[in-house]
Amino acid sequence: MSREQHFIDRLAAIARHSAARGLQDDVAVLPMGARDLVLTHDMIVEGVHFLSGDPPGDVAWKLVAVNLSDLAAKGATPVGLLVGYPLAPDPAWDMAFADGLAEAVGAFNVPLLGGDTVAVPAGAARQLGATAAGTVAPGGAPARAGARNGDLLWLTGMVGAAGLGLDLARRGAAEPAAWLAAYRRPQPRLAEGRALAPRVHAMADVSDGLLIDARRMGLASGLAVELALDAVPLPPGVARTPAAALAAATAGDDYELIAAAPPGLTLSQADCAQVTAVGRFRAGSGLTLTWAGAPLPPPERLGFEHDAPP
Amino acid sequence: MSREQHFIDRLAAIARHSAARGLQDDVAVLPMGARDLVLTHDMIVEGVHFLSGDPPGDVAWKLVAVNLSDLAAKGATPVGLLVGYPLAPDPAWDMAFADGLAEAVGAFNVPLLGGDTVAVPAGAARQLGATAAGTVAPGGAPARAGARNGDLLWLTGMVGAAGLGLDLARRGAAEPAAWLAAYRRPQPRLAEGRALAPRVHAMADVSDGLLIDARRMGLASGLAVELALDAVPLPPGVARTPAAALAAATAGDDYELIAAAPPGLTLSQADCAQVTAVGRFRAGSGLTLTWAGAPLPPPERLGFEHDAPP
Repeated sequence: MSREQHFIDRLAAIARHSAARGLQDDVAVLPMGARDLVLTHDMIVEGVHFLSGDPPGDVAWKLVAVNLSDLAAKGATPVGLLVGYPLAPDPAWDMAFADGLAEAVGAFNVPLLGGDTVAVPAGAARQLGATAAGTVAPGGAPARAGARNGDLLWLTGMVGAAGLGLDLARRGAAEPAAWLAAYRRPQPRLAEGRALAPRVHAMADVSDGLLIDARRMGLASGLAVELALDAVPLPPGVARTPAAALAAATAGDDYELIAAAPPGLTLSQADCAQVTAVGRFRAGSGLTLTWAGAPLPPPERLGFEHDAPP
Repeated sequence: MSREQHFIDRLAAIARHSAARGLQDDVAVLPMGARDLVLTHDMIVEGVHFLSGDPPGDVAWKLVAVNLSDLAAKGATPVGLLVGYPLAPDPAWDMAFADGLAEAVGAFNVPLLGGDTVAVPAGAARQLGATAAGTVAPGGAPARAGARNGDLLWLTGMVGAAGLGLDLARRGAAEPAAWLAAYRRPQPRLAEGRALAPRVHAMADVSDGLLIDARRMGLASGLAVELALDAVPLPPGVARTPAAALAAATAGDDYELIAAAPPGLTLSQADCAQVTAVGRFRAGSGLTLTWAGAPLPPPERLGFEHDAPP
């Protein structure tokens, strides 16, 4: 068991309130009158979740986006954002971060409501936190644990562009720009989440990699997941080979949504990415992969584990 | 202007939603049906807000307490807590932190609802964040900016014990235990806040020092503050001299409440600390001090400024 999982298990023993959902859902869901309140808190760390050289405005955008992605996965509409910000050694970094924050909260239409700024000792890696609050109809936030035997595994959009963009950023390359943008300016699937939430049994976002996040949904639901890797949409220009698809499905940082639902799911709204059936939930446990109907051995690393920085 | 204030001013230009209260209130207050939702996010940083050698359970307690203190200052009842936690280099630290977290959420009756754990690069100073959510009757959360000309400045409990405790902790001393406890296990004034909120014009907590927090209330309210330093309750055993009182009123970490209200304020509940009138709001601006009726020059440092670590 990973150190992170061991610690989370200890926390789960403390977090017994039903709103905590056993810490399985990346969010808390609290009944609050006519709406349920959805709360999430995500951190991003320099050298782990972003590169030291990433533009500060993009870091701000990503901090907002990763939190809103957790709301999207519950079908919630954002109502506010708080930011925990360590003042940078370089005041220009602070100001560029604030500019990116303004862009992001504007783009996603979520009001910045507050937070905290702190001084940190010189030389510390930047650790940024944000809390996003959203609301959803009572009982309307799908759990990660709700998949049913026979449900299909659905995926919004495609995966892999952000991982390719991270490779570009590490090499200082600027093209293809769409891959860099996928890494630095992810788009939380808020409209898709709202459209899907009433029609699915389970939903989660793909933050750590499609394979690991699909396995987590199966595990939380007490089911096995069969994933047809050849069905997974990949970015334009990426070869449709098992190796390329495995890289795309384990890279993480996609912020797409996965959902468990019966066949026939579509998203007709003009502002929504398409959803694709990429697998199926079955009785049993674990993750199995196929390529064109033939079994494919799962890779050792299914995605990003938080206590094993790349 | 301090770097922190410069950055906060930039954020305030982004945070124009009324729930953000101009970022003057340490919290956001969002109407949410039959109750107002109060949200706060506070961070504590190793070497700035706590010492490297502080017991991890006490660090957890403090993280919870400083966030709940912001809710107390708005008269809110806590409904949930999220924690942002960087996994420690030492797993025993993680587990001791979790034990302290369990104690704190039990003591303050606030459910732990979630959060995030992250890996951080080796050698980074610990940066811990928490978000506390609470609720209050609609319109019932007093602002920092609500003081009126002629109001008295009221203080719950006493100030200075935490500062003395920090001195003890730095020297590795263990007595008086009450001072160490005040520094390491602060008690947010939740009951006092709920009792005072409907009866005051303005309220805030004393996190950075009585003088600086009183001046901030005056500034936010567009008023001058006269503080009678000799009226400020000090811990038992502390000499009632101007020097000792100035030290107590500038040390910070007290987590008492200050409020602006007319004469005659009392707290009769058995579980509440007493409130003491320690000053008065007047037309004008700035902070003036008196000792036994005679003017006392304010010290250069009124309290803890976040971008000037001690």
